[in-house]
Amino acid sequence: MYNEFTIEGRNAVLEALRSGRSVDRVFILDGAHDTALGSIIKEIKKHPECKMTFTTKEKLDSMSEHGKHQGVVAVCAAYDYAEVSDIIDAARKKNEDPFVFILDGIEDPHNLGAIIRTANLAGAHGVIIRADRAVALTATVAKASAGALNYTPVAKVTNITETIKKLKDEGLWFVCADMGGETMYRLNLKGPIGLVIGNEGHGVSKLVSKNCDMIASIPMKGDIDSLNASVACGILAFEIVRQRML
Amino acid sequence: MYNEFTIEGRNAVLEALRSGRSVDRVFILDGAHDTALGSIIKEIKKHPECKMTFTTKEKLDSMSEHGKHQGVVAVCAAYDYAEVSDIIDAARKKNEDPFVFILDGIEDPHNLGAIIRTANLAGAHGVIIRADRAVALTATVAKASAGALNYTPVAKVTNITETIKKLKDEGLWFVCADMGGETMYRLNLKGPIGLVIGNEGHGVSKLVSKNCDMIASIPMKGDIDSLNASVACGILAFEIVRQRML
Repeated sequence: MYNEFTIEGRNAVLEALRSGRSVDRVFILDGAHDTALGSIIKEIKKHPECKMTFTTKEKLDSMSEHGKHQGVVAVCAAYDYAEVSDIIDAARKKNEDPFVFILDGIEDPHNLGAIIRTANLAGAHGVIIRADRAVALTATVAKASAGALNYTPVAKVTNITETIKKLKDEGLWFVCADMGGETMYRLNLKGPIGLVIGNEGHGVSKLVSKNCDMIASIPMKGDIDSLNASVACGILAFEIVRQRML
Repeated sequence: MYNEFTIEGRNAVLEALRSGRSVDRVFILDGAHDTALGSIIKEIKKHPECKMTFTTKEKLDSMSEHGKHQGVVAVCAAYDYAEVSDIIDAARKKNEDPFVFILDGIEDPHNLGAIIRTANLAGAHGVIIRADRAVALTATVAKASAGALNYTPVAKVTNITETIKKLKDEGLWFVCADMGGETMYRLNLKGPIGLVIGNEGHGVSKLVSKNCDMIASIPMKGDIDSLNASVACGILAFEIVRQRML
């Protein structure tokens, strides 16, 4: 289903336009002139299906979800969720071992955005999120993803455990980040893999953890309990990247 | 200088109390009863200098900076900034090679909090931030640091380049994250080291980059330009940790 959806901020809007996704209309602060907005206007002109409207700060503020529109708000169709099979197909088409992020209840939109950004740059083929007790693809997520949502498919599932079981049949191995696991450097993280990241407060749920093949831990020296979820995800994802490069 | 300062949220308040820092008073939602609040009350009783007040949701809301107080707000002295020399001394005392994060203009409080959290868990001895055009140690930073601010010293300097030069005299090498550097796995990141992370939008400033000994790049495959700053910092910090473990 399509819902109207806004993207705000200069980088995010420019990236959305360049990626070729369906932007219906861009609202720009009347009277604003600078090179960043110039680039956006130039890009809009390449897309005849996209309308451009100059408007007031008040109008932009009222459309803005987080008040950081930087003078530009794009209205476009909501990001469609992908199917899990689309993600696996994308990997097969590239002739690569599937590399998938599975998020077991990320609640903070900044974390979800940062994680999708990481997935894109780590060369993961997609991100799978949970339908309940988790943040969905909101404008804040889109902004925090810095354009990555235009490239990296995100699938939403109702049962993470069932999804893991099905993907095991496709040959994927699953590693989750949790306390008491094996130091990540000692695990073999090559081949088709699903990286499971838990909720910010509670971590990975028990049933999901039980269904993973490996539990990885990041070697930690400090006084507090845990890293930020998107940081931990990045560290583990790039350990997978490192091992794939060897 | 001391300013009154609030810490909100259960984990953050409990960590502040446990770390022994000076909490003047804790406001708790009147009538709330659960194990998490019970632990906080138990902890307060160990600190006779700390007062406890039961109050209304409205009062807590009015004190809250980001509206996520979870029924508890602590008022305490502002986090004191450390001196750069304190950070180096801490490393020497532990008989470890200094490992310092240098932040060249982090603006987002969630990023700064997440980075301090990473510094703590990566075993870094401290974080150096810039006085201008950068976020300071606000309540949002404290919350995002998940208690790490109680353990990891943060120094604020007016001139990052001068600080780097002085620390070079102490034997530190500096690596910054920037485009066009050498893949981080190929660099020697052992020994006394300063990890320099740039601003979310503009990266590391030219003068700072010029004063670094090495430019490291994270191997990236995707379509967008860059990782979230706190994620990139985490990945580089744990590459340093990995090399130190070898």
